Amino acid sequence: MFIKFITTGGTIDKIYFDDLSQFEVGESRMQHILAEGLVTFEFDVVPLMHKDSLEIDDADRRKLRDYISGDDATRYVITHGTDTMPVTAEALSDLKGKTIVLTGSLTPARFRTTDAIFNVGMAVATAQVAAPGVYIAMSGQVFEAGAVQKNRAENRFEPIDRN
Amino acid sequence: MFIKFITTGGTIDKIYFDDLSQFEVGESRMQHILAEGLVTFEFDVVPLMHKDSLEIDDADRRKLRDYISGDDATRYVITHGTDTMPVTAEALSDLKGKTIVLTGSLTPARFRTTDAIFNVGMAVATAQVAAPGVYIAMSGQVFEAGAVQKNRAENRFEPIDRN
Amino acid sequence: MFIKFITTGGTIDKIYFDDLSQFEVGESRMQHILAEGLVTFEFDVVPLMHKDSLEIDDADRRKLRDYISGDDATRYVITHGTDTMPVTAEALSDLKGKTIVLTGSLTPARFRTTDAIFNVGMAVATAQVAAPGVYIAMSGQVFEAGAVQKNRAENRFEPIDRN
Amino acid sequence: MFIKFITTGGTIDKIYFDDLSQFEVGESRMQHILAEGLVTFEFDVVPLMHKDSLEIDDADRRKLRDYISGDDATRYVITHGTDTMPVTAEALSDLKGKTIVLTGSLTPARFRTTDAIFNVGMAVATAQVAAPGVYIAMSGQVFEAGAVQKNRAENRFEPIDRN
Repeated sequence: MFIKFITTGGTIDKIYFDDLSQFEVGESRMQHILAEGLVTFEFDVVPLMHKDSLEIDDADRRKLRDYISGDDATRYVITHGTDTMPVTAEALSDLKGKTIVLTGSLTPARFRTTDAIFNVGMAVATAQVAAPGVYIAMSGQVFEAGAVQKNRAENRFEPIDRN
Repeated sequence: MFIKFITTGGTIDKIYFDDLSQFEVGESRMQHILAEGLVTFEFDVVPLMHKDSLEIDDADRRKLRDYISGDDATRYVITHGTDTMPVTAEALSDLKGKTIVLTGSLTPARFRTTDAIFNVGMAVATAQVAAPGVYIAMSGQVFEAGAVQKNRAENRFEPIDRN
Repeated sequence: MFIKFITTGGTIDKIYFDDLSQFEVGESRMQHILAEGLVTFEFDVVPLMHKDSLEIDDADRRKLRDYISGDDATRYVITHGTDTMPVTAEALSDLKGKTIVLTGSLTPARFRTTDAIFNVGMAVATAQVAAPGVYIAMSGQVFEAGAVQKNRAENRFEPIDRN
Repeated sequence: MFIKFITTGGTIDKIYFDDLSQFEVGESRMQHILAEGLVTFEFDVVPLMHKDSLEIDDADRRKLRDYISGDDATRYVITHGTDTMPVTAEALSDLKGKTIVLTGSLTPARFRTTDAIFNVGMAVATAQVAAPGVYIAMSGQVFEAGAVQKNRAENRFEPIDRN
């Protein structure tokens, strides 16, 4: 079993310097998280971008889509900022024959209390178990691309109400 | 979406008192782990036993099986000590129409570095995404009951070699 | 034994919201840190300001000085942003008959890896053991007010070289 | 400034293997704790024993006393199991011209919530600030050797009531 991890930035990889500095996207925490999970499968981690979710644009999404389209893995976990994660998920949704799971966190992975580790655990399981397609694993749930939104006021992911 | 969590003890819930004390199974950490994962689905946590894996016997497995059989939930996450987790998984494998995922951890959830949170994240996703059946989520992988063993020497879960 | 804790903000109390938010000074972590230290002495925590170190001005320092001057405790631990901590220490240095220790952290207390807990431990011991005076406890060392500076390039506190 | 750290075992260095294993004294966590505290002073860490507090006997205390007596450092932090820490402190109390601080923890340093880091912070400050003598830094307080006991029922250190 092999999973390819692609990191794009976002809250999950935020670091903090000091009073004079901003909170910035740092090196990916993915290897640390996988080490903590004591995983034994094979994997690669590809840091494709270092961006906040709101800075990811259509060109970035094409880059991500082209990367996966031209790559021969079949299981992907993509870490991504939360604000536009649903947009990126939809932009990948016509990729066939691959199980692609986007995740991230509402609190940086470097915090003592963070949803990052739980979320990556969900994403890793979904990449193995789910049928080919594009998913978002956040807020303890696995959503299909196109059927999920971030509720900013409540700071959680939820199904889109289609009424 | 509703998941029922059943806790039975094991390393995941181990606590430590002091020099005079043994390392013992304590209150379940499940609520803490789910709070850290910022989950938004509905759930119950049922503490069915407080035992080390090696103390769980056939009567305990019947008790667990009967509990699930007589319960109307369809998604279960069971935390269990690792040494006999595969035995318990097989004992549940004739239960139909339910997705049951066993997990636990090789390091107590109270440790700063632990696989517990990652593993519960995997189990929660599997309980949502997988077809009805019995699974073990450990070592970064989702295994089917009957096809997995703990390799004690290497301290990991792996597929059974059926050659 | 009684210690009065005064919090003024700074990195030690920084929190993080999400992609759209800034990293801001939050509620003081002091009670959490003291609970983790299993302290048994009596204490009060007084949140006097919520400011980054660079925003603390002479009026703020007078406010802090007046508070302590008019208060009847004899042992103080003050948490403060690091950039101007030496300035504030000097502004308090003519207060007599009290042991006053300033501390803070280079990494927020909410991080999994942080110097905050260690530093507060140093400050608490110094407030008990040191002669009356004003001290800074940072970088594993206890400095006297007026004899210490922050080396921003190296991100540490060090003695002032008076040559 | 130079501090010599001597580790003897105890709860602070306890590790956990798995269901079949006991909770054992592991490698010292001292380097990790000092790294987390971002200390900049010079130090050595000497692992003199690997014992639970209750296993430390008079021969061990002589060994520790002889080591310090024949060593040329002037500041020591000794990590030690909590149950007999006061006994060891008294056994060192005739050593002259050195500031010696014993500390440890009621919860292993590897736990997510532990008093170990706070306690070592207290000990490091005391070793710098206190007059020559032997001290115990636990429960948020700095006690002199001979004037402190562990209250096992309350799981804390407290002054000896000499009435």
